[in-house]
Amino acid sequence: MASIFPEEFVRQLDTLFRWRRDVRSFRTDPVPEEVLGEILAAAGEAPSVGLSEPWRIVRVRSSAARDAVRASFDRANAQALAGFSGDRAHLYASLKLSGIDRAPEQLAVYTDHEDGQGHGLGQSSMPETRDYSAVCAVMLMWLAARARGLGLGWVSILDEREVAAALDVPDGWRLTAYLCLGWPERESDTAELEAVGWERRRRILDRIIER
Amino acid sequence: MASIFPEEFVRQLDTLFRWRRDVRSFRTDPVPEEVLGEILAAAGEAPSVGLSEPWRIVRVRSSAARDAVRASFDRANAQALAGFSGDRAHLYASLKLSGIDRAPEQLAVYTDHEDGQGHGLGQSSMPETRDYSAVCAVMLMWLAARARGLGLGWVSILDEREVAAALDVPDGWRLTAYLCLGWPERESDTAELEAVGWERRRRILDRIIER
Repeated sequence: MASIFPEEFVRQLDTLFRWRRDVRSFRTDPVPEEVLGEILAAAGEAPSVGLSEPWRIVRVRSSAARDAVRASFDRANAQALAGFSGDRAHLYASLKLSGIDRAPEQLAVYTDHEDGQGHGLGQSSMPETRDYSAVCAVMLMWLAARARGLGLGWVSILDEREVAAALDVPDGWRLTAYLCLGWPERESDTAELEAVGWERRRRILDRIIER
Repeated sequence: MASIFPEEFVRQLDTLFRWRRDVRSFRTDPVPEEVLGEILAAAGEAPSVGLSEPWRIVRVRSSAARDAVRASFDRANAQALAGFSGDRAHLYASLKLSGIDRAPEQLAVYTDHEDGQGHGLGQSSMPETRDYSAVCAVMLMWLAARARGLGLGWVSILDEREVAAALDVPDGWRLTAYLCLGWPERESDTAELEAVGWERRRRILDRIIER
C-alpha cells in the first residue's frame, strides 16, 4: 500500500523540515525546466477548501515585470525601515530580506476569489480558507524544491496593488506570496533571522495548551 | 551534507503529497503520545514571517469543548446546506464533511495577532502573512501525520466566535484551522469530493501564466 512509508523516509522528512529554511541568497544558474515542472506539480497536490484549487501561479520572467516588483520591494522595505529606530533600525537595514535581485525563477502565487470551482463548499463560514489553500500550495512547492537541492524565499515586503499592476492579473486575484527560487549560495538548518540576532526561536511545547 | 536528499526520498515525497488527502472517517483507537509529539514538533519547523512563530495550538480534549465545537459545525453546516438547492443540495446533504464525531485527537490551530515576537518584520505590507505562517504549520503537521500512517482532516465549517467561546482562547487569537487527527478508516489517493462527484480536479498547468 502506498500509504506505508518506511521509517527511514519519516526521519528524512523531519530532516527536510529542519533544512527547509527561507533562502535570500541565490546563485544565478538557471533551474532546469524539468525540475521547475516537478515543483509546480507539487502545488497541484495541495489540499484546497471544497476542492476549489484556487491557486494561480504567475511565472515572472520579463525584465519589466521583475524590475517593477523589485521597485515595489524597495519602496515597501524603506517604509518598513522607517518604522524602526536605534539599534533595531540599524540591524534591520543590514538584513538581506529578498532574493529578487538574483533569483533565476520568480513565482507570484495568487488566490482566485471569483472562480466557482468547488461550488463554495466549506467557504461560507471561513472564506479565508481559499487563501489558505494557496498557502498550502506554496508550502508543498517549498518542500519539493528543497528536496531537490533548490532554495525558496518568500517575499512579503511588497505592495499588492503595485505587484498586480506589474503582472497585469485579473481583479479577482489576491496576492498570496511572491517566491524566489534557485540554487542557494549556502545551506543551513538555522533561520537567517536567528543567525543574525533579530529573533530567537521558541519551543513548540510552549505554544500548546489543552482544553 | 544534510541537504542532499536521495532520489528515492524525492520520489517518496511526491507519493506522500498524492496520498495526503483530507480524512473525515477515523478509527477511534488513540494516537500514541509519542507520535502526537512528533507531529506537533513538525509545526514548530514551519516558516514564519519575521520568525514570529505566531501559531498557537489548542489540544481539544474535554467532552464539553468537543461537544460545543460539534454543535457549531452542525449549525454552520445546516446554514451552508440552505445555500444549495436541487441536486446540489441533495449531494451536499449526503457528504461527510468532518470527523469531529470520532477523531481521537482534535487540534484547534490559532494565529496570535498580538504577540511581539519577530518585531513585526515582513508584516507591514501584508499582515495576513501571520495567518499564513500558521497555515504552513498545519501543512507540515499534515505531512508528518500522513507519513506515520495517520490521517488529518481540516474542518472549516465552523463559527470562529463559537469555537473561541468553547475553547476560551485570548481575544488576540484568530482561528486558522480546526484539525481532526487519527487513524483513517480507509486510504486513498483520490480526493473524497472528487470520488463522490462534487468536483473534479484540474491540471496545474492550466493554472500557470507567464509575464
